[in-house]
Amino acid sequence: MELALAEARTAAARGEVPVGAVVTDSAGTVLARAGNEVEARRDPSAHAEMLALREAAAATGDKVLPEATLWVTLEPCAMCAAAASFFRVKRVVFGAYDPKGGAVEHGPRFFAQPTCHHAPEVVGGVRESEAAALLRDFFAGLRQG
Amino acid sequence: MELALAEARTAAARGEVPVGAVVTDSAGTVLARAGNEVEARRDPSAHAEMLALREAAAATGDKVLPEATLWVTLEPCAMCAAAASFFRVKRVVFGAYDPKGGAVEHGPRFFAQPTCHHAPEVVGGVRESEAAALLRDFFAGLRQG
Repeated sequence: MELALAEARTAAARGEVPVGAVVTDSAGTVLARAGNEVEARRDPSAHAEMLALREAAAATGDKVLPEATLWVTLEPCAMCAAAASFFRVKRVVFGAYDPKGGAVEHGPRFFAQPTCHHAPEVVGGVRESEAAALLRDFFAGLRQG
Repeated sequence: MELALAEARTAAARGEVPVGAVVTDSAGTVLARAGNEVEARRDPSAHAEMLALREAAAATGDKVLPEATLWVTLEPCAMCAAAASFFRVKRVVFGAYDPKGGAVEHGPRFFAQPTCHHAPEVVGGVRESEAAALLRDFFAGLRQG
């Protein structure tokens, strides 16, 4: 999660909403890491998780990541939760909870839906306060800016 | 929808699950069209809708598509429904209903969630039988193959 937080900080420095994601294999080796690139790519689907999942699959040469853990600083939205399911990751570990847009513990709770055909293990709240502080500071800065 | 069906047929010919998507602007001009490329890209997130939405935004130079209609031959999944919301499309028109994986009229019904901050207008069942037949024939062929 340290690396994911670093990606989130780097994203903030680029003017992006500070969310970072890392994908590791079963040995804990980093397969991919990414920060949010919505502004840089002018692409609202360029969330950190989407970029990291695609990069990890490309790195392994496989279409799915059944042994992988997705580490992300914020509770995934519906798009990213569904993508994590499609990439068949073993585990999702996230930092801050997101009552406004999260889709794991909030809203659609995608992994608990009957239309979700692969539900990863989920661990939420890992280094939650640091991840949340990054987001809070970023949005406070925007309001002041 | 004719173009989206054509994209789906082309996808089937490439060995992809036959789903096609088109994005049009307010005048009906085609901004982007794509078929499913999950196998070709070895990327489970390369659904037709995701590719078409990204391409349409790139074509307009804008990050969002508030006047656009997304035409897709199959009810969008949670990933694509959330993406359509993030791209702020005005309307989603789909063909076949997808009780197993759809997220508009089934499962999470994403656009009706309080965590969905932009809900497009939705029209389902447009040229439903043709879109469904393409999928049915594709999977029947797989079982025989």
